[in-house]
Amino acid sequence: MSNEQKNAENVFKEFKEHSVTEFFRKNRQMLGYSGKVRSLTTAIHEYVTNSLDACEEAGIMPEIYLKIQQNGEERYIITVRDNAIGIPKKIIGKALASVLSGTKFHRYVQQRGQQGIGAAGCTLFAQITTGKGIHAKSYTDSEAFECDISLDIKNNKPIIENVAKLENPTNMHGLEVTAEFAGVKYEKSVHGVYEYVKRTAMVNPHASLTLLDPEGKEYVFPRSVEELPKKAKQAKPHPLGLEAADLLDFAHASTSNKVSTFFSESFSRFGPAKIDEMKTLIPELDFDKEPRNITWNESEAIVNAIKKMKWVSPETDSISEIGDAGIEAAIRNILNPEFVSVVQRKPKVFKGGIPFLVEIGIAYGGAAGRSGEESASMSILRFANKVPLLFDGGSCAITEAVRDIAWKRYGINDIDNVPVSILVSICSVYVPYAGVGKQSVAPESEIEDEIKLAVMDGLRNLQRYLHGMKNKGIAETRYKTIMRYIGQLSEDLGELTGKDAVTIENSLRNLIETKYKSLFANSEEEKEEAASDESQEPEEQEN
Amino acid sequence: MSNEQKNAENVFKEFKEHSVTEFFRKNRQMLGYSGKVRSLTTAIHEYVTNSLDACEEAGIMPEIYLKIQQNGEERYIITVRDNAIGIPKKIIGKALASVLSGTKFHRYVQQRGQQGIGAAGCTLFAQITTGKGIHAKSYTDSEAFECDISLDIKNNKPIIENVAKLENPTNMHGLEVTAEFAGVKYEKSVHGVYEYVKRTAMVNPHASLTLLDPEGKEYVFPRSVEELPKKAKQAKPHPLGLEAADLLDFAHASTSNKVSTFFSESFSRFGPAKIDEMKTLIPELDFDKEPRNITWNESEAIVNAIKKMKWVSPETDSISEIGDAGIEAAIRNILNPEFVSVVQRKPKVFKGGIPFLVEIGIAYGGAAGRSGEESASMSILRFANKVPLLFDGGSCAITEAVRDIAWKRYGINDIDNVPVSILVSICSVYVPYAGVGKQSVAPESEIEDEIKLAVMDGLRNLQRYLHGMKNKGIAETRYKTIMRYIGQLSEDLGELTGKDAVTIENSLRNLIETKYKSLFANSEEEKEEAASDESQEPEEQEN
Repeated sequence: MSNEQKNAENVFKEFKEHSVTEFFRKNRQMLGYSGKVRSLTTAIHEYVTNSLDACEEAGIMPEIYLKIQQNGEERYIITVRDNAIGIPKKIIGKALASVLSGTKFHRYVQQRGQQGIGAAGCTLFAQITTGKGIHAKSYTDSEAFECDISLDIKNNKPIIENVAKLENPTNMHGLEVTAEFAGVKYEKSVHGVYEYVKRTAMVNPHASLTLLDPEGKEYVFPRSVEELPKKAKQAKPHPLGLEAADLLDFAHASTSNKVSTFFSESFSRFGPAKIDEMKTLIPELDFDKEPRNITWNESEAIVNAIKKMKWVSPETDSISEIGDAGIEAAIRNILNPEFVSVVQRKPKVFKGGIPFLVEIGIAYGGAAGRSGEESASMSILRFANKVPLLFDGGSCAITEAVRDIAWKRYGINDIDNVPVSILVSICSVYVPYAGVGKQSVAPESEIEDEIKLAVMDGLRNLQRYLHGMKNKGIAETRYKTIMRYIGQLSEDLGELTGKDAVTIENSLRNLIETKYKSLFANSEEEKEEAASDESQEPEEQEN
Repeated sequence: MSNEQKNAENVFKEFKEHSVTEFFRKNRQMLGYSGKVRSLTTAIHEYVTNSLDACEEAGIMPEIYLKIQQNGEERYIITVRDNAIGIPKKIIGKALASVLSGTKFHRYVQQRGQQGIGAAGCTLFAQITTGKGIHAKSYTDSEAFECDISLDIKNNKPIIENVAKLENPTNMHGLEVTAEFAGVKYEKSVHGVYEYVKRTAMVNPHASLTLLDPEGKEYVFPRSVEELPKKAKQAKPHPLGLEAADLLDFAHASTSNKVSTFFSESFSRFGPAKIDEMKTLIPELDFDKEPRNITWNESEAIVNAIKKMKWVSPETDSISEIGDAGIEAAIRNILNPEFVSVVQRKPKVFKGGIPFLVEIGIAYGGAAGRSGEESASMSILRFANKVPLLFDGGSCAITEAVRDIAWKRYGINDIDNVPVSILVSICSVYVPYAGVGKQSVAPESEIEDEIKLAVMDGLRNLQRYLHGMKNKGIAETRYKTIMRYIGQLSEDLGELTGKDAVTIENSLRNLIETKYKSLFANSEEEKEEAASDESQEPEEQEN
């Protein structure tokens, strides 16, 4: 080696280990903290989704109050208060200031949060922009207290200070978090907090949301539904969704004392008949041994056997969707279009066994196609587990699926110049987000296919509507043309036939009006048909 | 609360902490492991970037050998061997099987890797798809050994087994890693390993890369440059890039015994004059105290003072760019276009102080605009720190900046239907990747502005070229038209004037050829001018 060269000894003396918090401290844009407007929206998003999840988990109708106060140039204090169940003192530090801690990570249930990063990310962001952690007030059914919480970044550990008891004479319950951020900006743009809250309210009609903006203006989004949505049940994993490594993890964590009972207790649809079938497929496997003794090779054999067997589809009560009415209301509210078509697909599975459901709405006219949502002019409103996705649309599976459609087939030749918006909602026990910031969905082919089928079906409805409009337009033009010449025509006919011109004109007028009236009526009917066509199950056709 | 409702006690009993490895085990798509083709490319990408970094760090001309063998359906064994310095036994486990461990995380130097996640991610992916870790052979200047390495996922710790000494009679040095993956696919598509290796070779002409594909076909990309690229120096952070939290981190880690020496030792451009200036701006700060005693408020005051002061730009020897010749060679090799224009910008800074440099190439004709790189048809070839970015282009700052340009100004009306490709390369001591998988750049406005300025300059060159082509085309058409009628014209003129038709034709022919020859020559000159126009510094104009 030359003098210029280094050897392993001196290169690796700089070798270090880092905490996940140090990682996000350095790469905060990966959590969504890039850009002043986006950063503030991200923080609000994290707190609001946690509050909604906490309320639903506890069976409480959500009432969420948000206050945003300016406190200097590009510096804001936000307060988020909910009426859920609070967080116990012994947990609150880790819940709000330790990355990858939480109740949601390992659960197989549809929730908005699924990582245990969001709230701790907010604390981190507050701390690195203002030097201060957050302040929390927690009212549970057994205690009421407040405290300051910050993060030991190097060790990913919470630091709790100034704990104090709170009076709670009204027995209220819930959590209130106050955090201050610098280098952020409140803006009433399509990527701002107001739009986020509005869209959240649209697809969560059971929630009441109040936003007090920095100018002191209060926006109230009252609940429009007096019932909690159908609760998404915690599902057992479906066998078809398992990979060898997953199965081994489940086996090693299992408390069942036999492989056979492990199967029936851990997974859905795994009844005695299925266990018998598997016994014939893997005769060498000991079904009476303890599941923790399953080896990798056996796990691979089991997964291969599962793939050869026929299975009933996963239970779909683990999905809680927005619903036709919710989708239509959201679209009408955001875009005020002249035409809306909503399509809901049946629940399907991706990766073999993870249940999900796609529902879409197509809007035509009004503000559709002009919301400025994406850089392409046709706008796509994206939602995942009832959370609006406002960022990173370019690489999202939703965007890619919508753009992949052969638009010309549906009479749309230049998608950059049509007043069309498409709302796409995905609900699942596990949304495969492409990034830690959870703003775009990774390209799973089953999900993309469902989106395409739903949108194509909606486009057929739109096409029918536009066709009706076009026919109506042509008929109107013809009608007007004929009517313009009807006087001259009647006089000419009168001279030609020797009959009274006025009589001729009247009978002609009658004839034409009758004919075109039916035409107009037809296109109106067609319009109504297209609009009511929303709930039909589309044919299974790939493009 | 009703019976349906839960309280904090029973909700939070499921509260758990998770390791960063468990997180990526669950969300492997965030590391780039989604899709069969992409997953294999991601693994190769991680090993190749590490090898290139290791060679450059050690001052060694890289020789990298890649072997991909199929071992069952959607199952491949990959071997990556380099000639760098190996990894010592005491480090190798953490280096290859512990997420967030490495030498690069805290360094302020341009490298391909910057996170300490890549190689451990490969081990994780091998393990969860095949149940097996990786095998490594390491040849350092003091030891030669092999071992099996796997990951304790729950604790993010390496497990090293079967360590054995290796013979090393030739004193070779370097690392060889063998890993097996299932659920992946080798494909010679634009997102496949071959394309990745080819593009890597293009922008790293000092490296020799050999790829043995699953069919046993060997592709050799020999080095075309016999010298290591200018080495990117490790830079001290520039004061303008600091936020209060950063400054405090540096202060607390500093070994300087005074605040004043801390400034000059830790940051670039912070000479005695600057320290004096700061003393007048923050008279209340004690410049003689130990830096670890700087408070948050003092840190904020320092950062505010820094913003008020004038600073010399950061040193730019921390940037090692691809260079004009490299960009042009890459474009010609990949696209074989009829026209190329390369523009290199001067180094700039983003976020106040992080140096970066943008260089671009515009290709017209050949395979340009048809490489299928992105879903939009105009293709963009993206590079960051000499690494090709093949995925997640939709939300990348590079894509957004290029699409944001007013294309019509440059005579391009329909960007979806032009044979144009644009190569964009960013080099920086810290590339702000949008995701952990490092395939797209977050939208930093300074970076986007530089990309736009560079591309706009390239487009002016292209426009000049196309204008020349167009003039040439018009001239040719006129020439042909006149030549077609010249015989008839001469006869008619002969009859009219009584002169000899042949004489007239000859003099006409002479006249026309002389005139059009100069026209053709002009457009040729213009073409040459446009092509040689590459190195000029573009005007600072925003669009």
